[in-house]
Amino acid sequence: MEKVKIVEIKKSIFENNDKQADNLRGELKSRGLYLLNLMSSPGSGKTTTLIQTINLLKDKLRIAVMEADIDSDVDAVKIKEATGIQSIQLHTGGMCHLDAEMTRQGLDSLDTDGTDLVILENVGNLVCPAEFDTGAVRNAMILSVPEGDDKPLKYPLMFSVCDVVIVNKTDVMPYFDFDLEKCREYVRMRNPKAVVIPICARTGEGVDVFASWLLNEVRNWKQ
Amino acid sequence: MEKVKIVEIKKSIFENNDKQADNLRGELKSRGLYLLNLMSSPGSGKTTTLIQTINLLKDKLRIAVMEADIDSDVDAVKIKEATGIQSIQLHTGGMCHLDAEMTRQGLDSLDTDGTDLVILENVGNLVCPAEFDTGAVRNAMILSVPEGDDKPLKYPLMFSVCDVVIVNKTDVMPYFDFDLEKCREYVRMRNPKAVVIPICARTGEGVDVFASWLLNEVRNWKQ
Repeated sequence: MEKVKIVEIKKSIFENNDKQADNLRGELKSRGLYLLNLMSSPGSGKTTTLIQTINLLKDKLRIAVMEADIDSDVDAVKIKEATGIQSIQLHTGGMCHLDAEMTRQGLDSLDTDGTDLVILENVGNLVCPAEFDTGAVRNAMILSVPEGDDKPLKYPLMFSVCDVVIVNKTDVMPYFDFDLEKCREYVRMRNPKAVVIPICARTGEGVDVFASWLLNEVRNWKQ
Repeated sequence: MEKVKIVEIKKSIFENNDKQADNLRGELKSRGLYLLNLMSSPGSGKTTTLIQTINLLKDKLRIAVMEADIDSDVDAVKIKEATGIQSIQLHTGGMCHLDAEMTRQGLDSLDTDGTDLVILENVGNLVCPAEFDTGAVRNAMILSVPEGDDKPLKYPLMFSVCDVVIVNKTDVMPYFDFDLEKCREYVRMRNPKAVVIPICARTGEGVDVFASWLLNEVRNWKQ
């Protein structure tokens, strides 16, 4: 038996993704279910960040995770084993992003009864996922220090659609030429309202700031 | 005046990319021009690796570079300033990859008279660029240590289409949980013939191995 549920996502047949996304968001609001879309490059530490965040929040919120990936189930198994929460893997069949209909297929495969928060770990890619509204309440992204502080200049759309930019792997900042203030400035150029949260997912440092932001968001959404 | 030529690439109108790619490769062979397609995640060190490689080879080969990017010209300017070779920027207009026709548009904008080697720095993305044959003679990719040794498991197509996997940022290996032997094994699972070359582009260590491989390739292609 597989360790986690694996869902093969079909390509969306809907032309108007923005409308599908708005519909999905409306439904989520009426159900009091908060969906966070988490994006990043491959290897930025999405899974580790999620595990730390979930462990801080799981006594306060009922959480589930959908892990989108080309074809492995490594991440969903890791999350389930490390946190005990409901975690499923979405196979995108080679697709480089999720749209609203694909996200809905994932949600339909989850048991969301009583769930407060679903986190969607999108495909590791700074380009395509930014182009498709998944229907999530908010978009967050992780930029890891080794990728460089210039990424908001090179992937403008990703940074302009994100409400939160988590800067991960701050522990290796001394070994890389990464200027946090410059990074904040570049992020502001793309999106003046974006919140920048430096963390080290490996040690857990700063993860409480992100967890507090998320807890507050979910509580507001349910009102 | 712009520091480097910027080419706005139009979306390809050809349905049969594989055929276009084969045609382009055939033309390149008859012109004795070698095209290398270099792929990676954002922030893996493609530009620094290119600068080091070009500086080792520019007395032996006439080299030009095409930098594909969503909309900045940061990389083409860097390469031109650091190596003095012909370098142009291809703007993909939000597209997440290059196909053969887009590559041809780039080549048409280069002065390739007497040029031995053109290096195409593809869009920073481990998913989409792997799906489109650009018409290059070979595909190479850079995996940087902070991304993790499990990437061949998670991005299978990228690793199966690459002839060379450059493992960059080996200097920070002590700070990351990266097992080079495990990485070699995962790469072999995807492509038993792929060459794995560990380098540190920042210090230049190992870049000579990649440069020798490339020099040899170009000389064979011109026979």
